[in-house]
Amino acid sequence: MKKSEDKKITELANGVLIGDRRKLARAITVAESTRADDRNLAENLISKLLPHTGGSVRIGISGVPGVGKSTFIEALGLHIIGMGKTLSVLAIDPSSPNTGGSIMGDKTRMPELSRNKNAFIRPTPSAGTLGGIARYTREVLLLVEAAGVDVILVETVGVGQSEFAVANLVDMFILLVAPGGGDDLQGIKKGIVELADLIIVTKTDGDLTPAAERAQADYSTALNLFKPTNSGWKPKVISCSAHTGRGIPESWDAIQSCYDTLYSSGSLLMRRKEQAKKEMWCEISENILEDIKSDKNVTSILPELESMVEKGTMSPTEAARNLLLKYKKNA
Amino acid sequence: MKKSEDKKITELANGVLIGDRRKLARAITVAESTRADDRNLAENLISKLLPHTGGSVRIGISGVPGVGKSTFIEALGLHIIGMGKTLSVLAIDPSSPNTGGSIMGDKTRMPELSRNKNAFIRPTPSAGTLGGIARYTREVLLLVEAAGVDVILVETVGVGQSEFAVANLVDMFILLVAPGGGDDLQGIKKGIVELADLIIVTKTDGDLTPAAERAQADYSTALNLFKPTNSGWKPKVISCSAHTGRGIPESWDAIQSCYDTLYSSGSLLMRRKEQAKKEMWCEISENILEDIKSDKNVTSILPELESMVEKGTMSPTEAARNLLLKYKKNA
Repeated sequence: MKKSEDKKITELANGVLIGDRRKLARAITVAESTRADDRNLAENLISKLLPHTGGSVRIGISGVPGVGKSTFIEALGLHIIGMGKTLSVLAIDPSSPNTGGSIMGDKTRMPELSRNKNAFIRPTPSAGTLGGIARYTREVLLLVEAAGVDVILVETVGVGQSEFAVANLVDMFILLVAPGGGDDLQGIKKGIVELADLIIVTKTDGDLTPAAERAQADYSTALNLFKPTNSGWKPKVISCSAHTGRGIPESWDAIQSCYDTLYSSGSLLMRRKEQAKKEMWCEISENILEDIKSDKNVTSILPELESMVEKGTMSPTEAARNLLLKYKKNA
Repeated sequence: MKKSEDKKITELANGVLIGDRRKLARAITVAESTRADDRNLAENLISKLLPHTGGSVRIGISGVPGVGKSTFIEALGLHIIGMGKTLSVLAIDPSSPNTGGSIMGDKTRMPELSRNKNAFIRPTPSAGTLGGIARYTREVLLLVEAAGVDVILVETVGVGQSEFAVANLVDMFILLVAPGGGDDLQGIKKGIVELADLIIVTKTDGDLTPAAERAQADYSTALNLFKPTNSGWKPKVISCSAHTGRGIPESWDAIQSCYDTLYSSGSLLMRRKEQAKKEMWCEISENILEDIKSDKNVTSILPELESMVEKGTMSPTEAARNLLLKYKKNA
């Protein structure tokens, strides 16, 4: 490492540790960059800050567009800040070509929270593979944690693989659903419901109140059927309204209670250890597969092999072996 | 290829194609073997038979021990054979160190079916990684298919990752559940319910009838909430009894109807193409990771890196990079 770079890292690290928002924003920008020198800087910075991480409650939060995610996060966020805590909202949205995509600008969608000095809101990085986005989000989470934030919400749009990536970054998972039941859920991908430690039925106000309460009962039944409880935590369903404030304190209490349960049973620590190890193997796997896919000996035969496999004229096993032979010959 | 081997393959292939049970059994034994010459033989045999595969209805079937899986398969199997069709039952059970493990011997658990000349029952291979077992099962499925079997049931124990591997081999997935609801389901892992195209509540007879019918209603509600329908097929819940025969013909009708829906919507062909391509990438990924894990430069530093990652003294990204550098240096 060059001396100037060393100084830069120390300066950024110290800034992050005292919670300097501009330094934190700068550190995040570095982590989000794909430039080789920035990547290097980011990794060294993360290494330096690692001993100061681990202190936040890490929460994944998901729901399809239109469910009222922004207003819920704004209401819950203000409640959390009202209790004297600091909060960070990070967003992952791989479907979005840039931050103006399907998750709207933060100032529009969380007007009060985005102005609050105890809230640090950061949109999704603008591009990259899901693996890449997951890595950056993990790094951003660690940076924010090192800055001493109490609660981190990692937001996803509920329609893709990003939830599973996020589940590997957080301590618990909240799914927001709209009243109205089945039809509204068609956009939610398989398995996401079963990630949920907490299901929150939004819009429990006015005319929608009976439908929301019915949905709450239905989800409770369904969760009892489907969700195994090996962590000591029994998933809850809460109906709430960001407008009237109904269910907002209860949502926070449930988050706190879930965290306490996972912490005292030892599940939290174990989960974080497993997440870190899994992340390492994910990165190894993703990096080596990228290397294989970009190997020019491989790319010269890949389309033909894939087509034969699809047509059923070559077995997947044989195709895999041929590809790896080509790859290794080159290595 | 040596000439003697070529002759052996032709002989086995011809035997399989005319449905010679002894030749089929011999071919399967070769596919299950991990010996290099057998692997080679198996792959050549599969390649030769590939044009003759694809004609079966491929069904995954899962349920925790005690749910009545064997008796259900026996009853459904005899119903299928009674309609003039041929049937094969394959089992995957990675938890079992040998075929006498948690899936019991077939003659004990499916006495009539295992004696029937139109049924071909094959237990799980005795050892190996899940990826390896999935590969063998895929090959066995293709062999059985080439032998002209109409219906293939791939059975798993419902408590692990094997369901997800099987889901990549079959056209549809059946989950067996016992009456009694939530408590009985604690053993079922996350996400398995959402794989199901058909949920069958077993033991709908005698005292258990009301409980089974309640379970049927609960699962219907839950499936409506949770299961997205992008294949044109709307999942069904059927209550049945292997003893009285209730629900057995309905189960087959639902299987047939699911198959017809998937076939005519084009989902079936698309699904099989995607499965084959996915299988190719799974094998590439599994083989290269095995290669990394057994690389002696890697193994010399792996335990230390894993421990640092778990303790949080090294980031997963940094550890992954270090490991890959070591691996590539050696390659």
